[in-house]
Amino acid sequence: MTAAPTSVSVFGPGLMGGSLLMALRQRAPDIKLGVWARRVEAVDELKLRKLADFGGTDAAAVAADSQMIVLCLPVELLEKVAAEIKDGLPRNAWVTDVGSVKKSVVETLEKLLGRGGSFVGSHPMCGSEEAGLQAARADLYEGALCVITPTSHSNPQAVRAVSALWRTVGARTIEMEPAEHDRAAAIVSHVPHVAAALLVELVRAEKPSFRELCAGGFRDTTRIASGSPDLWAGILSSNRAEVLAALRKLTAAATRIEGALQSNDTDALRAFLAQAAQHRSEILSQS
Amino acid sequence: MTAAPTSVSVFGPGLMGGSLLMALRQRAPDIKLGVWARRVEAVDELKLRKLADFGGTDAAAVAADSQMIVLCLPVELLEKVAAEIKDGLPRNAWVTDVGSVKKSVVETLEKLLGRGGSFVGSHPMCGSEEAGLQAARADLYEGALCVITPTSHSNPQAVRAVSALWRTVGARTIEMEPAEHDRAAAIVSHVPHVAAALLVELVRAEKPSFRELCAGGFRDTTRIASGSPDLWAGILSSNRAEVLAALRKLTAAATRIEGALQSNDTDALRAFLAQAAQHRSEILSQS
Repeated sequence: MTAAPTSVSVFGPGLMGGSLLMALRQRAPDIKLGVWARRVEAVDELKLRKLADFGGTDAAAVAADSQMIVLCLPVELLEKVAAEIKDGLPRNAWVTDVGSVKKSVVETLEKLLGRGGSFVGSHPMCGSEEAGLQAARADLYEGALCVITPTSHSNPQAVRAVSALWRTVGARTIEMEPAEHDRAAAIVSHVPHVAAALLVELVRAEKPSFRELCAGGFRDTTRIASGSPDLWAGILSSNRAEVLAALRKLTAAATRIEGALQSNDTDALRAFLAQAAQHRSEILSQS
Repeated sequence: MTAAPTSVSVFGPGLMGGSLLMALRQRAPDIKLGVWARRVEAVDELKLRKLADFGGTDAAAVAADSQMIVLCLPVELLEKVAAEIKDGLPRNAWVTDVGSVKKSVVETLEKLLGRGGSFVGSHPMCGSEEAGLQAARADLYEGALCVITPTSHSNPQAVRAVSALWRTVGARTIEMEPAEHDRAAAIVSHVPHVAAALLVELVRAEKPSFRELCAGGFRDTTRIASGSPDLWAGILSSNRAEVLAALRKLTAAATRIEGALQSNDTDALRAFLAQAAQHRSEILSQS
């Protein structure tokens, strides 16, 4: 049994952070909500919209008033902000994040914030091609999977509190080691993103008249390629070893299909496609 | 001004053919509808549902009663059925098909049926992962693009009549040379299909626990991989030269991204992703 925190602060109220505030306000009205943002206008807007009860642009001051801190910041900013809050953190205040890559972030933040194991990484697997507070919505986490990545250094109370937070806003939670998470994310998310972008560029390099033929299938297959280039360049870069390994597996498999096409081995093509169709159903039934 | 045909027959009442019958019944109730199927039960069902006025399992007999014949058959069956109907075709009866690959089909069917240029290829770019008459629906062609692939041998009247048929059921039509169509289809449809199947297989080869992470992005990106393996093996095989060329371009581009990951060239990754996001919007605004 984990008692709900009396105060939760979101650092960085964009799509993820703003949606978390909206969801907590709706589902846990007793929790005091705090916010830290770089611009005071963003803090004021959230207070006006009753999505924050306290907050400001001074990270240490906001952290000092919070039992749970959720860092919803780009990877590049995480370390800087964590360094600012570490000395004033209340005892038994827990910290988590929402980043798409975990190993490097967890190592860095455990070192900075980890006395007592107060930091536990999170990766709520939702989001959209849109970004920013204007895209935030109270049901973003509903039914989403949130991967929690504790380590041997994590305080078990922090792990329970962080998991409970995500379940409060409607997510399912599973635990994975940070390195395992990164490998899985490369396979199921980061390399599909690269592939979608490559498919767009394949069309772009051809005659403009080909574009008229981009029907529904193309739209769906490439949807994720419309995600934020800055965010995704950061994700690919911070997980580059795993992304590179997975991308190499993909190109090796593509080369085998090239061989089947070259030798017109229709049986091999049919077997490949039949397996993919069957495995997709199996995979999605387990997700 | 093209007069509507007084009778249209669908050969092969699956998803495409069944939807065509439903759409024509709704939008052009004066046209007599015919059907040819291998199983008499399929013909009887369509007559019972008032989706066919005449028809049977004798291809030549059905064709002899039809002003417009739409062959909705797998590539492998097209040639056989065309050979059966060719001698009894009424004068000024036009024939088209719905196949996803055009060059080989158009060459073959022009040779068989083309005296007078009566055959004109079509590729309505719609469909779904579902198949068969049970998945058919009257609005399948609404707003879809249908590529018409006339050649120098085509009777201009046939080209106009075939185009008019697809517009009657709600499609937009454009004309392309058969070889150009096949190259475009490889780029915008066939290679994305292969890529989706490759992404599924990448997940399948990993630990089962990774499957839990397959979120919305993965579902969309791989949706087309659930298409009929038989149908798609036929498509890839009949368009293998173009698919092979496009797949090689894709793997070459993937190798360049591998290089950017290896050297941790975040600027190159960001530029690649930013271009893809922008080009995707441009492409879809032109489709």
